[in-house]
Amino acid sequence: MNAMFNRSSGSLPSRVTLVDVGPRDGLQNEKAQVGTAEKAQLVGMLQAAGLKEIEVTSFVSPKWIPQMADNTAVMAAVERRPGVRYSVLVPNMKGLEAALPTRPDEVVVFAAASEAFSQKNINCSIAESIERFAPVVAAAHEAGLKVRGALSCAVGCPYQGAVSPDEVDRVAGLLRSVGVDHLGVADTIGVGTPRQVQAAMERALKHFPLVEVSGHFHDTYGQALTNIYACLEMGIHSFDASVAGLGGCPYAKGATGNVATEDVVFMLHGLGIETGIDLDLLVDAGAFISGVLGRPPASRVGRAVLAKRQG
Amino acid sequence: MNAMFNRSSGSLPSRVTLVDVGPRDGLQNEKAQVGTAEKAQLVGMLQAAGLKEIEVTSFVSPKWIPQMADNTAVMAAVERRPGVRYSVLVPNMKGLEAALPTRPDEVVVFAAASEAFSQKNINCSIAESIERFAPVVAAAHEAGLKVRGALSCAVGCPYQGAVSPDEVDRVAGLLRSVGVDHLGVADTIGVGTPRQVQAAMERALKHFPLVEVSGHFHDTYGQALTNIYACLEMGIHSFDASVAGLGGCPYAKGATGNVATEDVVFMLHGLGIETGIDLDLLVDAGAFISGVLGRPPASRVGRAVLAKRQG
Repeated sequence: MNAMFNRSSGSLPSRVTLVDVGPRDGLQNEKAQVGTAEKAQLVGMLQAAGLKEIEVTSFVSPKWIPQMADNTAVMAAVERRPGVRYSVLVPNMKGLEAALPTRPDEVVVFAAASEAFSQKNINCSIAESIERFAPVVAAAHEAGLKVRGALSCAVGCPYQGAVSPDEVDRVAGLLRSVGVDHLGVADTIGVGTPRQVQAAMERALKHFPLVEVSGHFHDTYGQALTNIYACLEMGIHSFDASVAGLGGCPYAKGATGNVATEDVVFMLHGLGIETGIDLDLLVDAGAFISGVLGRPPASRVGRAVLAKRQG
Repeated sequence: MNAMFNRSSGSLPSRVTLVDVGPRDGLQNEKAQVGTAEKAQLVGMLQAAGLKEIEVTSFVSPKWIPQMADNTAVMAAVERRPGVRYSVLVPNMKGLEAALPTRPDEVVVFAAASEAFSQKNINCSIAESIERFAPVVAAAHEAGLKVRGALSCAVGCPYQGAVSPDEVDRVAGLLRSVGVDHLGVADTIGVGTPRQVQAAMERALKHFPLVEVSGHFHDTYGQALTNIYACLEMGIHSFDASVAGLGGCPYAKGATGNVATEDVVFMLHGLGIETGIDLDLLVDAGAFISGVLGRPPASRVGRAVLAKRQG
């Protein structure tokens, strides 16, 4: 019995870095249009809560993503703090060129681990999509920026179903070969469970060092926190999360929200892992943006803490 | 890196037993009054989905728990299936005497690991509450029934805050000493995270064999599935869960719902663990009772599967 217990009580990372993707990945997937000032205020509240990495906006054509049409204005409106890294998503060279004058610290490029998803989403093969990124990565590096690669559909795909770890292996290798510095392994549709996620992560770690691999999980099937825990057991210590679970309303049909930052922080602090984040201020940020959207936070910790405050 | 990965990929149990406590612990904590026929239909749908253990009702004074006043009628209305175990909660000898003619397979008694909770909830010390149970346990055994002990507030208490593993150790020992056969370790207020839960479980396992220890988690702070996963890593292979997350509306202030059976089954099946449960039929059961209550299921798997069915 003790042997069994000890097997699972090995050391976890002592510190975890969370990247709040709420302002970008979150708000991009909300139907409501949020104003520029509110977006900048959200970023301000997140950094006040202690977030050191924030994905602020994307430089994608407003034809496709009207929610992010004010990207330059948002970047200008954010009151930057020293020590905080601000990243933006860029789909191509045009996006990078638009992003550079706004002085991001990092840019995010993306590829899928599923050919079916790549074809449906960006109308080309995975290999083609990464070839197209190569000059974007080079230009970002020339501008002194770090490049994060987001690998979507790393466990499952809405079109092809299961995605094999071999595909993660292949695409992670391709992303590394074009110079991507960091790999974010994303279970975009939230179907993964711990062993599948660990298998995907194991392949990612063949191509990127531990410190440059992060996990990105969605709570569609409620599995996100458990998958983060399974990653912690592998030593992975960086995760994306979205304040208030922005990115999919839990009450709506086909909800696909990101894991809520508040829920992740509660778990990490409970595990004795440092995050540098003040949970109460983070709950405030989630309550603020949820108020703007006119609904309760999708974060269960957010709801429980707010209910407790009301007594 | 591989060593790290292997550490966390040890074998998990190949099979897990879930006890659906929705009809009792779930409906008891819902504000809406559900009819006897609907309760029996819920039990019928759960067993059709493959549940082999169901907590059907409680024999507590209707003054305290009006939702369970139809306990005898519900037990009579359930069309029993061979191989399914039906349990009922009994707070005292009067409850047991009322329960016995309804022919349950098991009875559940309860104690708290928190003195403050015991005093507030049942107005006596933990030791006194267990002394009072002793004859109930003996009488249940005499009637050929198995006795499950539910140990509430095993990690945290709404009145005293943190609960130490030493208290779990002490109360688990007391419950064993009066002949309780099985210990259900319950994080009643849902504040636990994996290491705290493992510490409580470790103490429970000092007094009960692995096969007679189960976990009972609430999703108030979204931690339930991760805690179940942490228990699986210890070899624990029986858990309470509540279809549709019955027992606390996720939209309400101070939500304290049980972990949803659907979410647990999704994780277990993803881990390759057998449950004998048909997830689609389970989602049907959750949709049925949620319809009776007039709200969407609190299970994220339930909502995602229902959304997918609608296309």
